[in-house]
Amino acid sequence: MTTHDFVATAFYNVLGTLPPALTITSGDTVVTRTLDAWGYDENEVQRAHGPNPMNGPIFVEGAEPGDSLKVEILDMKPTRDMGFTRSVLAANVIDPEAVRDLPRSEKTLWHIDRHAMTVQLKEPVAGIENMLLPLSPMIGCFGVAPNYGQAISTATSGAYGGNMDYRLLGPGATIWFPVSVSGALFFLGDCHAVQGDGEIVGTGVETTFEVTVRLTVEKARPISWPRAKIADDIITIGNARPLDQALQHATTEMLNLLVADYGLSKVAASHLLGQVVRYDIGNVFDPAYTVACRIAKKWLPAR
Amino acid sequence: MTTHDFVATAFYNVLGTLPPALTITSGDTVVTRTLDAWGYDENEVQRAHGPNPMNGPIFVEGAEPGDSLKVEILDMKPTRDMGFTRSVLAANVIDPEAVRDLPRSEKTLWHIDRHAMTVQLKEPVAGIENMLLPLSPMIGCFGVAPNYGQAISTATSGAYGGNMDYRLLGPGATIWFPVSVSGALFFLGDCHAVQGDGEIVGTGVETTFEVTVRLTVEKARPISWPRAKIADDIITIGNARPLDQALQHATTEMLNLLVADYGLSKVAASHLLGQVVRYDIGNVFDPAYTVACRIAKKWLPAR
Amino acid sequence: MTTHDFVATAFYNVLGTLPPALTITSGDTVVTRTLDAWGYDENEVQRAHGPNPMNGPIFVEGAEPGDSLKVEILDMKPTRDMGFTRSVLAANVIDPEAVRDLPRSEKTLWHIDRHAMTVQLKEPVAGIENMLLPLSPMIGCFGVAPNYGQAISTATSGAYGGNMDYRLLGPGATIWFPVSVSGALFFLGDCHAVQGDGEIVGTGVETTFEVTVRLTVEKARPISWPRAKIADDIITIGNARPLDQALQHATTEMLNLLVADYGLSKVAASHLLGQVVRYDIGNVFDPAYTVACRIAKKWLPAR
Amino acid sequence: MTTHDFVATAFYNVLGTLPPALTITSGDTVVTRTLDAWGYDENEVQRAHGPNPMNGPIFVEGAEPGDSLKVEILDMKPTRDMGFTRSVLAANVIDPEAVRDLPRSEKTLWHIDRHAMTVQLKEPVAGIENMLLPLSPMIGCFGVAPNYGQAISTATSGAYGGNMDYRLLGPGATIWFPVSVSGALFFLGDCHAVQGDGEIVGTGVETTFEVTVRLTVEKARPISWPRAKIADDIITIGNARPLDQALQHATTEMLNLLVADYGLSKVAASHLLGQVVRYDIGNVFDPAYTVACRIAKKWLPAR
Repeated sequence: MTTHDFVATAFYNVLGTLPPALTITSGDTVVTRTLDAWGYDENEVQRAHGPNPMNGPIFVEGAEPGDSLKVEILDMKPTRDMGFTRSVLAANVIDPEAVRDLPRSEKTLWHIDRHAMTVQLKEPVAGIENMLLPLSPMIGCFGVAPNYGQAISTATSGAYGGNMDYRLLGPGATIWFPVSVSGALFFLGDCHAVQGDGEIVGTGVETTFEVTVRLTVEKARPISWPRAKIADDIITIGNARPLDQALQHATTEMLNLLVADYGLSKVAASHLLGQVVRYDIGNVFDPAYTVACRIAKKWLPAR
Repeated sequence: MTTHDFVATAFYNVLGTLPPALTITSGDTVVTRTLDAWGYDENEVQRAHGPNPMNGPIFVEGAEPGDSLKVEILDMKPTRDMGFTRSVLAANVIDPEAVRDLPRSEKTLWHIDRHAMTVQLKEPVAGIENMLLPLSPMIGCFGVAPNYGQAISTATSGAYGGNMDYRLLGPGATIWFPVSVSGALFFLGDCHAVQGDGEIVGTGVETTFEVTVRLTVEKARPISWPRAKIADDIITIGNARPLDQALQHATTEMLNLLVADYGLSKVAASHLLGQVVRYDIGNVFDPAYTVACRIAKKWLPAR
Repeated sequence: MTTHDFVATAFYNVLGTLPPALTITSGDTVVTRTLDAWGYDENEVQRAHGPNPMNGPIFVEGAEPGDSLKVEILDMKPTRDMGFTRSVLAANVIDPEAVRDLPRSEKTLWHIDRHAMTVQLKEPVAGIENMLLPLSPMIGCFGVAPNYGQAISTATSGAYGGNMDYRLLGPGATIWFPVSVSGALFFLGDCHAVQGDGEIVGTGVETTFEVTVRLTVEKARPISWPRAKIADDIITIGNARPLDQALQHATTEMLNLLVADYGLSKVAASHLLGQVVRYDIGNVFDPAYTVACRIAKKWLPAR
Repeated sequence: MTTHDFVATAFYNVLGTLPPALTITSGDTVVTRTLDAWGYDENEVQRAHGPNPMNGPIFVEGAEPGDSLKVEILDMKPTRDMGFTRSVLAANVIDPEAVRDLPRSEKTLWHIDRHAMTVQLKEPVAGIENMLLPLSPMIGCFGVAPNYGQAISTATSGAYGGNMDYRLLGPGATIWFPVSVSGALFFLGDCHAVQGDGEIVGTGVETTFEVTVRLTVEKARPISWPRAKIADDIITIGNARPLDQALQHATTEMLNLLVADYGLSKVAASHLLGQVVRYDIGNVFDPAYTVACRIAKKWLPAR
């Protein structure tokens, strides 16, 4: 297996069927340096425009429609000391009448201490001076080219992945995306140093990273929505509005997974889900919201 | 402070302004034995009909509109070895087209081992034989009389509490409800031995409990939605459909809490929420869905 | 059949199982004078408080659960020259970010010309001086006591009717409500001189009326949601949030109606609905939204 | 002005920035023959695959981002006697629990009488033998290339238009789309012989047409969502899920239109909308739902 040092020179604001920037063998590892959500690099030089410019696409040999692309996030190293956020809750996450009384949002700077692995506001804000957050890297936007020859904005997400902004998709996580085109055409970018559930100010702490991923084709493994595993859990992800529909997609995908991969009946899968499921709200800000359906591995039967 | 042994003899399927079954002093403790969601007692004798018959109402002296009623859940002892669930995912939590292929739901029995504090299916189901769950008691439905003289079904929930079916509201939790009528008129019932997020089979493991709560009036403390604290977190709760609106209510209440109780500006509160908030989906089954907005206490400023 | 002149002396802000103010025989006619949504009478004297104080309940002899109550709106005479509205779009009907730039809403007076049967702003507003609207009376809030002993705020609506704020429910319309308690317990109030779809400023032109209705019990005629007929159409009504769910309720009720009353197969009913259905948005302001599903009578088979 | 006879030889399942099939001058007229939603032509020969293959794109000289493209639908002639529909209500338009009892949908043929201008089922279906519908042509899917270089499936819709499936967009209607790329890149297809509100069986009567449109660039006329006018009304259109959000988009666009084009204050616009607005549900089937906000021209001030 080869490790590719992928230096992106073009950046895209869509996930789509575009000319590959890199071609790799299934199982290869890629190291690449991402821009922030607004297109600035590790030296704070603007290299592209927002939203969420992507490195890619990476053509993975052998990937065909009906396969899954397995993405192991091996490492994420922050490459900049500066991160930024918006400063005010998004209008869509509070009661409509309360929006009148919200201040306007401003770009706010954060300091990322790459030695201590912490994140804090650059200028102290009264009352939250103690907010010294542990660095919790995640990839906000990644996925593969969607079906039907579509090219879809990196502002949103769908069955192919995209801007899911789900905080548990960081180092150690493995994600599977459904392949729709030859080569899968993998994209990534928009990494965050930390983010709460829902991305409710419209950003995490947006910054630049060196990301290391291993990309592997799993042949003849059709899935309908992104799936993931982390240390203790398996996960399925739905992207849609309202949250209710995103949750329906994620739950249906988990039901299908439990039936197909673990041989459970729908009744057995229902008992399991009914009493042990956990839901996370990835984002409740982007055009499509993200809900994750999570089951602890300890409850799963042997495969 | 007095401890009342409250033996309910009438059970209600609404939370409303009904004749008090017990009158107590603020700060008193109440011990009471609940029926299950379908009205059966610890001896499996039907004493009332569903949905969710309530013990109460309890009139707490001194409570007036504009106050909050603080409910400390001191203890929940299961009083029966049998619990039950529905056996199939609710139709509204999966993709509409997938509903066609769902089997019909049946009442399924579970064994509650009150010594080992575990819960498992009474009859083993293939593939999930290892599902021996720790007993995790919670109150599914509790709250106070709603405003405007309303009496609202225990199937649903609102600003006054009700059937929130949120799994973190168990022993050790403290919940505040907004008082709308003199005496607050507190109700409780519908306790679960365990439940996943969302109550997505339409039940937790439904059974009977002896519940011990301490009820305290907090004067002149207007809140708009239920609030809670647990070991490590503070919580606000929104009840509505779709999940998006429940989340708006919960987030607005948390924003108001952080501003009023901790003196944060809206910008400071937004920074805090944006990077550390956690959302839980209490239920996504009942007529009103429940979303909880949670913040770890460690991030809160000193009051 | 008797005509009752019902002079309400108590007014309720809930629909619930309350002591009857009037008892009638099925088929009797009732004439009654309503207050406006804020509780003012035809002399602008406050007689009750908002929201939407109701005349009633009227006990209709012979009505039992499982029956329908048929309500024919025979006449609505405005009893006052003054109506009022709110002056600004409700926050929930525009894009969340646009709410910041909305002015605050104020009570605005309208002149109802009871001779010319027209409605217009009392003080001219620049640009809409030509807005001389035909009087189009409707009942905003009416229905029967809900099930389970509930008493539900007149701010909202449900299967039992309530605050549907649907502009086609005026003189000449016949509405059926599902009976949940003995006597049905009919309430009405909150009449509007005119209203657009959705009640998107949060009011119609709110005023007082003398309303004449004939109330008839239809035995053993279980329905799940309100149904109606007007000159050219039959209608089913769903009340819920979001609009999607209200539409599901209304459509399901129409499907059931076409199958049960007209003997159509589900396929025949689908063909009919698919190509000729009309949907109206009753209100998109109240806690429960209202969607009406409408079919022109000319497309219906003979019964 | 020139009239172009545009014979499409390639068909697209996305609206995006693709090589123009025809370049015209602003104000020119285009006559073109469309395929049906599944890609069959007037001779029932499959020429492309679904969903909704498009004729286009048409590059309109002079169109630039910030302009609007005005599309006048001058004529729609059916070119085939056969149309088809699905036979059963879509699962998402009825109550989730009711989906279990729906039959499976099948392709059903309809006869289009091009002389009598009527549409009826090819094989009579019991109970609806009298369903002889007037031909009511409409364009289901049309619009321009979206922003950010996106190419979006013809199954869905957005600010750029797309698969709105709104029955009032037929001959005599004029629609404006926001231009995002040079030349606008106009697409059209998926025409229906008739369709109910909501497209709730998932189709109208799908067939082929010869469509005549005049395309005119309106310079420096930024709009956010499609706008239209028909004989008696002006219209704004929102595309999103749930319906609530589609309605917010449409209402916000109408508010902006009334303020910018008619000089109304937000209060005046609110009074107008509040009392005379009509909402239509274009589709409640596609990934994005469509809501139209409609105002009768007679209520508009002179411009």
